[in-house]
Amino acid sequence: MKKNQIIDILESGQVGAEITVKGWVRTRRGSKNVSFIALNDGSTINNLQVVADAENFGEEILKHINTGAAIAATGKLVESTGSGQSVELQAGKIEIIGKADPDKYPIQPKRHSLEFLREVAHLRPRTATYSAIFRIRHKLIFAIHNFFNERGFYNIHTPIVTSSDAEGAGEMFRVTTLPMNDLPKTEEGQIDYSEDFFGKSTNLTVSGQLEGELFAMAMSRIYTFGPTFRAENSNTSRHLAEFWMIEPEVAFFDLNDNMDLAEEFLQYLIRYALDNCMDDLQFLSKRLQEEEKNKPADQRSMELIEKLRFVADNEFVRLTYTEAIDILKNSKQNKKGKFQYPIKGFGTDLQSEHERYLVEKKFQKPLILTDYPKEIKAFYMRMNDDNKTVAAMDVLFPQIGEIIGGSQREERLDVLESRMEEMNIPADEMQWYLDTRRFGGCQHAGFGLGFERLVLFVTGMGNIRDVIPFPRTPKNCEF
Amino acid sequence: MKKNQIIDILESGQVGAEITVKGWVRTRRGSKNVSFIALNDGSTINNLQVVADAENFGEEILKHINTGAAIAATGKLVESTGSGQSVELQAGKIEIIGKADPDKYPIQPKRHSLEFLREVAHLRPRTATYSAIFRIRHKLIFAIHNFFNERGFYNIHTPIVTSSDAEGAGEMFRVTTLPMNDLPKTEEGQIDYSEDFFGKSTNLTVSGQLEGELFAMAMSRIYTFGPTFRAENSNTSRHLAEFWMIEPEVAFFDLNDNMDLAEEFLQYLIRYALDNCMDDLQFLSKRLQEEEKNKPADQRSMELIEKLRFVADNEFVRLTYTEAIDILKNSKQNKKGKFQYPIKGFGTDLQSEHERYLVEKKFQKPLILTDYPKEIKAFYMRMNDDNKTVAAMDVLFPQIGEIIGGSQREERLDVLESRMEEMNIPADEMQWYLDTRRFGGCQHAGFGLGFERLVLFVTGMGNIRDVIPFPRTPKNCEF
Repeated sequence: MKKNQIIDILESGQVGAEITVKGWVRTRRGSKNVSFIALNDGSTINNLQVVADAENFGEEILKHINTGAAIAATGKLVESTGSGQSVELQAGKIEIIGKADPDKYPIQPKRHSLEFLREVAHLRPRTATYSAIFRIRHKLIFAIHNFFNERGFYNIHTPIVTSSDAEGAGEMFRVTTLPMNDLPKTEEGQIDYSEDFFGKSTNLTVSGQLEGELFAMAMSRIYTFGPTFRAENSNTSRHLAEFWMIEPEVAFFDLNDNMDLAEEFLQYLIRYALDNCMDDLQFLSKRLQEEEKNKPADQRSMELIEKLRFVADNEFVRLTYTEAIDILKNSKQNKKGKFQYPIKGFGTDLQSEHERYLVEKKFQKPLILTDYPKEIKAFYMRMNDDNKTVAAMDVLFPQIGEIIGGSQREERLDVLESRMEEMNIPADEMQWYLDTRRFGGCQHAGFGLGFERLVLFVTGMGNIRDVIPFPRTPKNCEF
Repeated sequence: MKKNQIIDILESGQVGAEITVKGWVRTRRGSKNVSFIALNDGSTINNLQVVADAENFGEEILKHINTGAAIAATGKLVESTGSGQSVELQAGKIEIIGKADPDKYPIQPKRHSLEFLREVAHLRPRTATYSAIFRIRHKLIFAIHNFFNERGFYNIHTPIVTSSDAEGAGEMFRVTTLPMNDLPKTEEGQIDYSEDFFGKSTNLTVSGQLEGELFAMAMSRIYTFGPTFRAENSNTSRHLAEFWMIEPEVAFFDLNDNMDLAEEFLQYLIRYALDNCMDDLQFLSKRLQEEEKNKPADQRSMELIEKLRFVADNEFVRLTYTEAIDILKNSKQNKKGKFQYPIKGFGTDLQSEHERYLVEKKFQKPLILTDYPKEIKAFYMRMNDDNKTVAAMDVLFPQIGEIIGGSQREERLDVLESRMEEMNIPADEMQWYLDTRRFGGCQHAGFGLGFERLVLFVTGMGNIRDVIPFPRTPKNCEF
């Protein structure tokens, strides 16, 4: 494919070359004699300045060169003095490809609120902020595949529609083709799911982990990267009904190996963004600083790039849940009653306020908390010898809170079966899962990374609806 | 991460080194004095031979070294004479990690039918055939991201749950959280979807194309790679209810650019497999040749690797639909009435038998057919000047048939609107899509590649259920 995008022209365009460039007008300014058009094609945050002398272009052309219009400009690349870039285009010819009536086009060259832009989510990638976010999102996707591929992991597409509802990770969406106005019934008057498309009741997956484990027990190192779903009525800036998750699973791994992998993974991804997205990060950093000006000085967050470097370069703190509870219990915060949920002792589920205290106040570093009480964790996590805690781990990040949750898995069939019984997990529907413990079972571990939380962290954005192309939340499924 | 997988040991293991290796037993054979264990960890098709002298290991250990058992073997790497590999492990210590009772473990060292293995899909990646397929599947996933990333494309995660049902690409699955036993009704007695999770009726996506177009109109070059769904009651070896699709979409592209991209893309992927999966391909090629022995000589297909090289190295034939119809109409096949669906002339929809005739008999090369009658193609395809055909393209492969379908998109608002009216597409629900034509619209094009069809082609497998981890088909949603 031809290298004729604006990113290529700005990086390696030769002064004197005759080129044609196509893109969308970001702004046009100038005088009666000359127009300066900031042209962008989404390949980079940077615009190519197109200089159009009025003597070459009649009003018939110029009046259509409005924000949002698609144009093709042909001319000579010349050294730039004013545009902030090394080259600019001295236009000999301009073709109006697609107009954008400034009275109707919603995105004008002024500051729009993010709330407004969410309502025109089909047009928002045409703004500098969102195109920067989605370029970074792409680069992180690529970095994830790169990281695992280099390390001998195989990407497994676990199923989206599933009949398994045993994990208990959250409320699920039903998938059905039954006629809603005329549901088939059994003789007992129950809905007859044997007539549904899959011959049984089916849902959207909440996690690919259990299926991932099956493949780890065959191919040793695997990862999933796909959409997952929660039908929870959470209208917060941290929750989506549809989000993407990455779940590595590794045979012969214990909890320490798992922590090492999670830390190496996150640092790799952040370093990759620093190495490959600096223009976009600088733009988002400035944006964030503008926004933070309105906050009191002591509530402003660390500058974006500095924050990313800090996380990429510093070892994460590792701490057991029990140690964390001790620290929290004895903190001034707790003693002065400043936590909304006071820490009573072992067994308390940690709230966001506690996690933030540990990460942002106490350690000022990402944290890996391990060995949680069995009561507050899932059935498949490996029981520790104390019979009270399980080999779980959560990675906590500043601002974001939990970014990774994982564990060593219970590989002992008898222990797993009795945990399932305790927690009312129907074992008869899970025989396929138990088979991995019955036949050639082994120590193994894995974790889940919520992709949008990572993108939030790297872009410095505050609302998860702004880092996914078309957010799905309660009562919202537009586009 | 440590490089201690069998693929690393076989590639760069040093004779004399003391190592520990973990994996699953494929077979054990030998004599009273010595056991030869073929150990595999899924990292490669090749086994590491572990040699266990009876004098070092009692019957208590050896009796558990059965097919499927997980073991750890520690010992010295020595030059191999008999195993077909350069090195083998002279075991000093063997630990049984997870047993596999040969009376119960379903996968035994004999030839199992693919049908049987589909029933134990949770265990089938432990076989040589399926682990080869899923390693190739991974490498193709990686190659896809690599191809686009190198060419300045951004990966966009288009939504899975959607309220848009306008494309008409096929039957859809409903997504709902309404209580099926007590559906809320409106005053008119209709089901009240305003009470559903998203406040309206929602479905699983059939394609990310329309949302992809929105992003191409902002970022120029984008691609999607995600699951798509068809609620069609097709129980064939070519159809799945849930499958993965790749959909690039490019601004300022016409049909010719689109054909060039599709051809470059497919050839890149096949070459990537040849360069990176040769061991697995050789295994699958042998498997295929075994299977084909039962067929009459003239019905056997080309050897797998030869076939892949042939497609990677030869230009695709490009032909209009009208030309193809002429060829088919005048073919002996047609004149002798050997087509099940006789070719009458312009307007006939091509069936699989026609596509195979063109690809396998007439041209013996992949084919790109273009400019189909508007009646048999989707509303968004660009109308040609003849007003009879649209700028569509299908890429046809030997054995597989259609592997890619795409088009230049209709960018002219008035033409698009009148096409939508003709085809009863509700324009009022599609204003967001039409906005891309209203504001800064431009010529653009894209296509969709059904990922499993590609994996079928590259692995030489015959049934699409064998190239996806957990196939979803009518009445089948296990695991």
